[in-house]
Amino acid sequence: MNYFSSDFKLGILGGGQLGKMMLTETRKFDIQTYVVDPSTEAPCQFGATKFFQGSLTDYDTVMHLGNQVDVLTIEIENVNLEALETLENQGKKVYPSPKTLRLIKNKGNQKDFYTQNNIPTAPYKRYKTLPALRIDVENGVIQLPFVWKATEGGYDGNGVKVVRQAIDLEHLPETECIAETMIPFKNELAVIVARSASGEIKTYPVVEMEFHPEANQVEYVICPARIDETVANKAREIALKVSESFNHVGLLAVEMFQRADDEILVNEVAPRPHNSGHYSIEASYTSQFEQHIRAVLDLPLGNTDSKVAGIMVNLVGEEGFTGDVVYENIEKIMAIDGVTPHIYGKRETRPFRKMGHVTIVNENMAEARKVAQQVKETIRVISK
Amino acid sequence: MNYFSSDFKLGILGGGQLGKMMLTETRKFDIQTYVVDPSTEAPCQFGATKFFQGSLTDYDTVMHLGNQVDVLTIEIENVNLEALETLENQGKKVYPSPKTLRLIKNKGNQKDFYTQNNIPTAPYKRYKTLPALRIDVENGVIQLPFVWKATEGGYDGNGVKVVRQAIDLEHLPETECIAETMIPFKNELAVIVARSASGEIKTYPVVEMEFHPEANQVEYVICPARIDETVANKAREIALKVSESFNHVGLLAVEMFQRADDEILVNEVAPRPHNSGHYSIEASYTSQFEQHIRAVLDLPLGNTDSKVAGIMVNLVGEEGFTGDVVYENIEKIMAIDGVTPHIYGKRETRPFRKMGHVTIVNENMAEARKVAQQVKETIRVISK
Repeated sequence: MNYFSSDFKLGILGGGQLGKMMLTETRKFDIQTYVVDPSTEAPCQFGATKFFQGSLTDYDTVMHLGNQVDVLTIEIENVNLEALETLENQGKKVYPSPKTLRLIKNKGNQKDFYTQNNIPTAPYKRYKTLPALRIDVENGVIQLPFVWKATEGGYDGNGVKVVRQAIDLEHLPETECIAETMIPFKNELAVIVARSASGEIKTYPVVEMEFHPEANQVEYVICPARIDETVANKAREIALKVSESFNHVGLLAVEMFQRADDEILVNEVAPRPHNSGHYSIEASYTSQFEQHIRAVLDLPLGNTDSKVAGIMVNLVGEEGFTGDVVYENIEKIMAIDGVTPHIYGKRETRPFRKMGHVTIVNENMAEARKVAQQVKETIRVISK
Repeated sequence: MNYFSSDFKLGILGGGQLGKMMLTETRKFDIQTYVVDPSTEAPCQFGATKFFQGSLTDYDTVMHLGNQVDVLTIEIENVNLEALETLENQGKKVYPSPKTLRLIKNKGNQKDFYTQNNIPTAPYKRYKTLPALRIDVENGVIQLPFVWKATEGGYDGNGVKVVRQAIDLEHLPETECIAETMIPFKNELAVIVARSASGEIKTYPVVEMEFHPEANQVEYVICPARIDETVANKAREIALKVSESFNHVGLLAVEMFQRADDEILVNEVAPRPHNSGHYSIEASYTSQFEQHIRAVLDLPLGNTDSKVAGIMVNLVGEEGFTGDVVYENIEKIMAIDGVTPHIYGKRETRPFRKMGHVTIVNENMAEARKVAQQVKETIRVISK
């Protein structure tokens, strides 16, 4: 297949920052892209060959895009799966496959899938309704504390809650859910796996999420994770197994816990480029976005090794600021060696909105970590 | 100045591959760009905030662009300088300055400038007409062989010719010219200098052009150059001096000869991102394109060091092929670790047309050099 400066067209469902960073790569290769997003002001409004405004959950919109392109991929999971299934049945190449998207979408099914495939994951029990869970808690079948997860609709921490006392159950939505054993973990890790249509497969190094000591929020994504090599190898092997079990095509970000005893448990997966792989643009031989394009087009996969240590800091809207965005002190962080801001292109900031990220690279991890803290303490996403 | 996700607009004259690679950086920073190019199919047709078709040498077109933007830069030198001068006089920020562009445009004036500023360059003599040069050759004032250069209008080797015998003079165009002493050189080197509006200045490492042993064509641009550190330091110091002498703002690529006795002579300069800096996208902490944007916007300059060794191979149209381009064996080179093709986005190939480039990076220079040769021998730019 001739993709480069040709009539070939790649469709992308979703025009947010992940799509935008994919477009950097399709422009580099001069591959035509058709992108749909609900917002006319989406980050992908520039850089695509054609950009359409439309609802990603609308059957006709997805069919319309699919019919105009040769291969279809996503940058967000919440899309109309019926349309993707129809397109796939009609012979269109859809990566990742709608079957995988459907399976991942339901956290109960996702957990069952891990169990069926001997992939280590935290113990859990599924509930069709909240009252059923309440009864199990009352009867001591489920021990407190535990993690409640809505099976569908959660994102960025929504739909997940730690239940410490019976009273916490009162504030949960009435929906299908799972109760998961709370895992006391040493580290939260992630591995991105790339798998191409013809089955070539590669893993990126293990990354580590470093949390704020008090706020319990991820502050830094660190590559490589500061863990033993045996643990890292185990995490990469498990991630590989997850991707293979799904027969996944494209990128799969596998989020994991490292238990106190160094056992690895899979938490959940994202079937696309992922926040935990943003460091790769500056640090890796092949960025996760280029790799995703290579995988879904069945091109050879690129080297996943790092050139240098990389740390990623998210730029989220500061509390108390809503309106036209200002990146306060961005010039100050740009004066530091190895610091690269990525601005997603959203004009309006809101508290906690993902507005961009900053990558810090350095030959020396300790130095990178020091600079990352400096970056975090310097830049602020506020409004005019 | 707030550039990021704001109303600020950067104008770029020229929409070719250099502009396209600048747009990758302006998109990363979400900086608005207005671009003009004569071709509606130019590589910059995607990725700019606004793209206009128009002649770069037309006064009104350049004025029209300039009046819509806050800062104006170029990706090609051959633009209407009168318009840039008017805009600058009206207070518009134009980087590089039209004064520098005018000076560089005339190779006679450029050589005089080096002489006046004690910048080492090959001995030369200026001629208003070709007959005047002929008389000097007949009278032995100019020794054969020498290098003839048209003072204006040359590009990519056009307008430059080695005169070995008197008969060679017969085939030269009747134009103002210089006769330059031929320098037997060990190496052709280049240094890219970045200088910001407020005078911050940094040099990239010295790169080396490796020539084909028979064809006398540059085959590889190699960073860092395989030369002594003392020679490299001298080359960087001279390049720094050139940029400072011009009071240049933006990137200045300084091409130099390393003589047999290790003296460095300046050959010529390009006041913009340059082919000799393409390696920087994959190899450097800060790519030349990001650096150009930083410099013209008076942001702090980024680190010019390399993460790894880099080699660049140009992808030019093969002789005997004209028409819709095919990058034969591109998949084969993409299967090699550390190999990144850049496809500029020109649908039609012609013999020797610059269609793209390939960067090879590796921790080990000898390995990178081996891979570069493999790339060169594998990929072919042909037509359907």
